[in-house]
Amino acid sequence: MPEDHRIILLAHGSSDKRWCDTFEQLAAPTVNSVPGSHIAYMELATPSLEQVVEQGVLEGVRSFTVVPLFLAAGRHLRKDVPAMIRSLEEIHGISIHLAPPIGENPQLGEAIRDVVTQGLAQ
Amino acid sequence: MPEDHRIILLAHGSSDKRWCDTFEQLAAPTVNSVPGSHIAYMELATPSLEQVVEQGVLEGVRSFTVVPLFLAAGRHLRKDVPAMIRSLEEIHGISIHLAPPIGENPQLGEAIRDVVTQGLAQ
Repeated sequence: MPEDHRIILLAHGSSDKRWCDTFEQLAAPTVNSVPGSHIAYMELATPSLEQVVEQGVLEGVRSFTVVPLFLAAGRHLRKDVPAMIRSLEEIHGISIHLAPPIGENPQLGEAIRDVVTQGLAQ
Repeated sequence: MPEDHRIILLAHGSSDKRWCDTFEQLAAPTVNSVPGSHIAYMELATPSLEQVVEQGVLEGVRSFTVVPLFLAAGRHLRKDVPAMIRSLEEIHGISIHLAPPIGENPQLGEAIRDVVTQGLAQ
């Protein structure tokens, strides 16, 4: 049965497997609790954003939200990723919404505070 | 009165003020609740790590923990930041502990899941 919508957690990517392992751990709670959510990499690792979108299209998904696993928006999120998304929308005739980087959400700052204060208490 | 220990939240830095604004918002809950905690930038923005350490030393602090506001460890955290820290330890005769990047803590993955599921519920 086709899903209506797919969440893609987008990480930067690296040729260093340890980098990707960390992002897969970061994505795991979402991937395990949000049906149809996937991790993808902008560059240097797989699955790429293109691959995850194409797989979704093959499965009948026409609408995607890309959630950047970035703390803040730099050149990649202001220019490169929007260009990749426009291209994928045109190629596949689909709709892709780019969410703000997760670091812009106040909950991340609160989680950081909790990590620091728990570290101090140890 | 000299503080025993100072927490430094280390962000990458950028010439783009919007980048730094996001990191200052991310650091705010910690800075507002952990006495003596400060944000510092690795490069391209101020205050630099060197400046925040020097200010602490002037105020009598001899021990610091650097908490990287990075989701994962790449070259910067594996090579550049440890080299900066060794240099500052030698110059000032102080002790600086480099904590893991905040993204390696499971609480960040849970916060990301919460952000995504709340976004879906809206």
